[in-house]
Amino acid sequence: MLFFMNDYSEGAHEKVLEALIKTNMEQHVGYGVDDITSEAAMLIKKRINRLDADVHFLVTGTQTNTIAIAHFLRPYESVIATDLGHISVHETGAIEATGHKVIEMESKDGFLTPEMIDRAIAKHADEHWVLPKLVYISNATETGTIYTKSMLEDLRNTCDKYGLYLYLDGARLANALTCGDNDMTIEDVAKLTDAFTIGGTKNGILFGEALIILNNRLKECMRFSIKQRGGLLAKGRLLGVQFKALFEDDLYFEIAKHTNETAASLKNGIIELGYKFVANPSTNLIFVILPNEVHNELAKHCYYEAEHPYDESNMEARFVTSWATPKADVLELLRLLKELKNGGAISS
Amino acid sequence: MLFFMNDYSEGAHEKVLEALIKTNMEQHVGYGVDDITSEAAMLIKKRINRLDADVHFLVTGTQTNTIAIAHFLRPYESVIATDLGHISVHETGAIEATGHKVIEMESKDGFLTPEMIDRAIAKHADEHWVLPKLVYISNATETGTIYTKSMLEDLRNTCDKYGLYLYLDGARLANALTCGDNDMTIEDVAKLTDAFTIGGTKNGILFGEALIILNNRLKECMRFSIKQRGGLLAKGRLLGVQFKALFEDDLYFEIAKHTNETAASLKNGIIELGYKFVANPSTNLIFVILPNEVHNELAKHCYYEAEHPYDESNMEARFVTSWATPKADVLELLRLLKELKNGGAISS
Amino acid sequence: MLFFMNDYSEGAHEKVLEALIKTNMEQHVGYGVDDITSEAAMLIKKRINRLDADVHFLVTGTQTNTIAIAHFLRPYESVIATDLGHISVHETGAIEATGHKVIEMESKDGFLTPEMIDRAIAKHADEHWVLPKLVYISNATETGTIYTKSMLEDLRNTCDKYGLYLYLDGARLANALTCGDNDMTIEDVAKLTDAFTIGGTKNGILFGEALIILNNRLKECMRFSIKQRGGLLAKGRLLGVQFKALFEDDLYFEIAKHTNETAASLKNGIIELGYKFVANPSTNLIFVILPNEVHNELAKHCYYEAEHPYDESNMEARFVTSWATPKADVLELLRLLKELKNGGAISS
Amino acid sequence: MLFFMNDYSEGAHEKVLEALIKTNMEQHVGYGVDDITSEAAMLIKKRINRLDADVHFLVTGTQTNTIAIAHFLRPYESVIATDLGHISVHETGAIEATGHKVIEMESKDGFLTPEMIDRAIAKHADEHWVLPKLVYISNATETGTIYTKSMLEDLRNTCDKYGLYLYLDGARLANALTCGDNDMTIEDVAKLTDAFTIGGTKNGILFGEALIILNNRLKECMRFSIKQRGGLLAKGRLLGVQFKALFEDDLYFEIAKHTNETAASLKNGIIELGYKFVANPSTNLIFVILPNEVHNELAKHCYYEAEHPYDESNMEARFVTSWATPKADVLELLRLLKELKNGGAISS
Repeated sequence: MLFFMNDYSEGAHEKVLEALIKTNMEQHVGYGVDDITSEAAMLIKKRINRLDADVHFLVTGTQTNTIAIAHFLRPYESVIATDLGHISVHETGAIEATGHKVIEMESKDGFLTPEMIDRAIAKHADEHWVLPKLVYISNATETGTIYTKSMLEDLRNTCDKYGLYLYLDGARLANALTCGDNDMTIEDVAKLTDAFTIGGTKNGILFGEALIILNNRLKECMRFSIKQRGGLLAKGRLLGVQFKALFEDDLYFEIAKHTNETAASLKNGIIELGYKFVANPSTNLIFVILPNEVHNELAKHCYYEAEHPYDESNMEARFVTSWATPKADVLELLRLLKELKNGGAISS
Repeated sequence: MLFFMNDYSEGAHEKVLEALIKTNMEQHVGYGVDDITSEAAMLIKKRINRLDADVHFLVTGTQTNTIAIAHFLRPYESVIATDLGHISVHETGAIEATGHKVIEMESKDGFLTPEMIDRAIAKHADEHWVLPKLVYISNATETGTIYTKSMLEDLRNTCDKYGLYLYLDGARLANALTCGDNDMTIEDVAKLTDAFTIGGTKNGILFGEALIILNNRLKECMRFSIKQRGGLLAKGRLLGVQFKALFEDDLYFEIAKHTNETAASLKNGIIELGYKFVANPSTNLIFVILPNEVHNELAKHCYYEAEHPYDESNMEARFVTSWATPKADVLELLRLLKELKNGGAISS
Repeated sequence: MLFFMNDYSEGAHEKVLEALIKTNMEQHVGYGVDDITSEAAMLIKKRINRLDADVHFLVTGTQTNTIAIAHFLRPYESVIATDLGHISVHETGAIEATGHKVIEMESKDGFLTPEMIDRAIAKHADEHWVLPKLVYISNATETGTIYTKSMLEDLRNTCDKYGLYLYLDGARLANALTCGDNDMTIEDVAKLTDAFTIGGTKNGILFGEALIILNNRLKECMRFSIKQRGGLLAKGRLLGVQFKALFEDDLYFEIAKHTNETAASLKNGIIELGYKFVANPSTNLIFVILPNEVHNELAKHCYYEAEHPYDESNMEARFVTSWATPKADVLELLRLLKELKNGGAISS
Repeated sequence: MLFFMNDYSEGAHEKVLEALIKTNMEQHVGYGVDDITSEAAMLIKKRINRLDADVHFLVTGTQTNTIAIAHFLRPYESVIATDLGHISVHETGAIEATGHKVIEMESKDGFLTPEMIDRAIAKHADEHWVLPKLVYISNATETGTIYTKSMLEDLRNTCDKYGLYLYLDGARLANALTCGDNDMTIEDVAKLTDAFTIGGTKNGILFGEALIILNNRLKECMRFSIKQRGGLLAKGRLLGVQFKALFEDDLYFEIAKHTNETAASLKNGIIELGYKFVANPSTNLIFVILPNEVHNELAKHCYYEAEHPYDESNMEARFVTSWATPKADVLELLRLLKELKNGGAISS
């Protein structure tokens, strides 16, 4: 069975695993105040060129978004996001569970635009409405598209105009910053946002997201929020060890390059076969329009997501490559798609 | 430098680490619905003799307590705990952050008694007060003492009298159930509580707590709460792999036996040396009264907690052994304590 | 200056005021457990033909919606409402502040339809989404339209299909049930919903909303929630006195008839003058398309809301009549509109 | 039947009622931005000699405490109060329901002392604990005692030492500031606290508490919090009218003087009769130790609270006088107590 379900189906990249094994019997103080975690944080600060940043390591993406946003906002303040945003539709209302409304702006491609922010602000007139205060974007977006540098600059300017914080969910930041369409560096991200995350879980470690806080007003007492909301790991050094491995020798970006390359191979093969995409994919989330009969057959040989019909005769199929995807698997998937395209049965 | 700071200073027990390494490149579906996690849950259900139980695997102790208790209670319901309870004083008000008051009953030894519950219930008369609904206890307690079976039965009866849920925080349950003073089995715990936790982090795994729900009324939709509060791990199988390792061949209890044996050696040695305990320790938390001059010297050679003065001339020192504590380290610590007892300098 | 700003600009209807004066020096126990409040509750139970209902009296509409909905839902459950719903856009995120997401379905006319519920349910697939559990509608709606009996029956059936609660915000229920287009009785409302409110503030009393709970599962411990969220009035009898006055001799509906009659006069006059409506108004909220030059002049002589432009040359103006609106004021407003229509200056 | 149950058993003082009647048919804009409310706020600002203060009018005491404290604090911050504090034990965990822990310090007489604050601060060491940030006191306290000026100054200094806000719940502030033992003015209160409340409900109006915010850091966006938590009254002018009546000609203090005088008469009569007090009462809450047989007989002729036994043979009885208590009722209560003292039956 092939596996193109997601990018968190295996454990850890071998270098990360080695680091965990090597440090396993070391004794460290708990809760992330150990030396390794400090080293990992320093590696990141240097890499993003912001020695003044605060770096916190958390376990899951929902946890990171929730703790950060709840920490940043006053009770009556709210978030502007797209209606495809991960916090809008895939985190079980976690932001609302901390008391904050998410204002969802309709988006077809996953992008939040300055114009959407203008509209949200215009609508929220006075104290009978929540007060918009934080803009949430994801890069790569939930549809696999990526922001360009000028798009991010425009958002920054719009946020400044209204006194809004700009928060970037980087669950798949590595993929965004290493794909062919990208023109942005991680230093740019660190310069243009108030806070952002560096996703590890989907880029080769067992678990972990780094939360980077750049705006001084948002830094105070963050560890209280992390502990209060269950995010402070007793063996905090596990996060330090893994992120240290990721940011030594730029492994973080190397891993993503592999992911993107396998995705590009798959994408190009699919184009050649004449299938269409739901949206033009920049990174490793490839949404393909599959005829129902192709899907029905393919699903017997490969795991992938196909939850939504595209129309009456087609499904929306999502193929995801990862740091661990062998090139051979891409070729095999393309072979299957080719055979099915031709209407023949699959010869296994 | 010796290390008796806590029982989560190393990584994972070798058998657990091996299981992680062995399964690292396997591909599994995410979020804890994989096969390994199911196997781990089944092993636990069999071991506690409750095939009807719901088993959920979470990452940290604060997270587990918070998600469980917030899930179980209605907004106006509250928790009865001791004023030493982990949720009362070491979780940054996590329970209150979900909207629920913790009614703290003064305790000297960490035990919550039926009489305390009687008093709490009597005081909370009507709708001008919160409604007590859940009793929180820890076993082992926060002072290292343990509940006997009859104590737990009495609590169960008291809870039944008032319609209260009985929740047992088992962050150090393994230590409690394997120490010399214990007369209870894990089956007893599963029979007498509405929900309890099986702590892994402090007993040889990288991270992880199992939440066991026995009362049918408390089971519904728990995965929604876990996801909403950031506790659903993408690579959920990591928890499955570790707990499977713990509950194959009863490794869980074997590990704790080692912890308790080193603790007993240390305790006996300390008694021989004539030092006094703050409380009589049953498990691996040993609170010793150390003269200030002994503490000042010892702290140069050994890590341990000593945050509170016992009186003007003594400190309250906490020594903790773990699954990874070598017996040689216990002997070395006793040697140091002996030398310091005699007033001499330490010969290193 | 004429005043068509809203229906809560005066104090209380004379009969309500008399009742307050008459009982002013009586001594009653506090917090709504007095005899007058019981009598008021019984009058309502009889009037809606549901002796089994629980009736609670609260102070403001936002308070009532918030306390009720937060009481009814588990933490991960959510509300389906229109994007025009009062809780969606005019209560400062009060529902979200208690932890619950409001799923906003786009609506042009204020109505929530079964089809919208179907769509919301279909989208919210599993524990990565909030769980829809309560449907919120307003009657009259926020645009002044009203539900027919068959519309409400269809919603009831759809809610039953999915196991949803149906909650009706009756801030302007009196207006809805007494207007010309209505075919529903308050007994119907009590039969078809799980809970609903009877608005007093906008129908002739100083303040007060009655919360009617019909579904037994939602009743338990409501007074705890009311007290906890600041809604339990020390001099609770004030609510009892006012609602008793409203439900003796059906004053509640008489008042609304006057409101609707003045609204109908205004509406008919406006039609004769040739102005257009934004939506066809059934009750006392009349949204008129006013040319900018008419609005600019009229606003010097009359208070009314005109916050949104209709298009480049027109404003959306909202005229509201109330129990206290003199017929003479309607005639005077129509005179002004007529003069301005003719392009002439206003002769005062 | 005599009535010494509480000080909110009647409606409004005649001057307040007159003001409500007189303004009943006036038309005002809603939600407290009307002229009368502004005038009332200005009267208070002048009376407390703080033109820079923000004044908000709310409905209930629990509502006011909750909205203010939740607005002032960050999620991980907590409140220090006594274990007798109204927010600790009579508001159904309202503060906790907004996410904040109340650290309860044991108190016998209702006073919170600097020493208690020192102890609370010392205990809350780091991010594993909530962060104490606000000190809550009541004046008069829940036991009827009052703070002297030097006591309040000491609390101010202690708060400044630790960077804490000082919040004073003035539900019975009028009684405190007009009783014989008092040496403080309302200007002193406004000078020494960061925020305080001026209770109206228990001092002659139908309902209403004024929240006074003095610390600039706490002022921003308060109206959002008031609306979000259901505290913004549509007919906000009702609060304005009543507080304007209270602060014209110092009616607020006149009313309280009457209350205190009747309380003093009752207290002196009780002393003469030889009954003992639970605590020495300064204001209108008089806690008397009544022999069970006296209580059993008296309760047939007079309403008062007697919820707690003092010891095996006595009850703790609470008698409360109010602005509406006739002097004749005091004399009659004393007559009853005298007859019962002598063991005789009551001659009615």
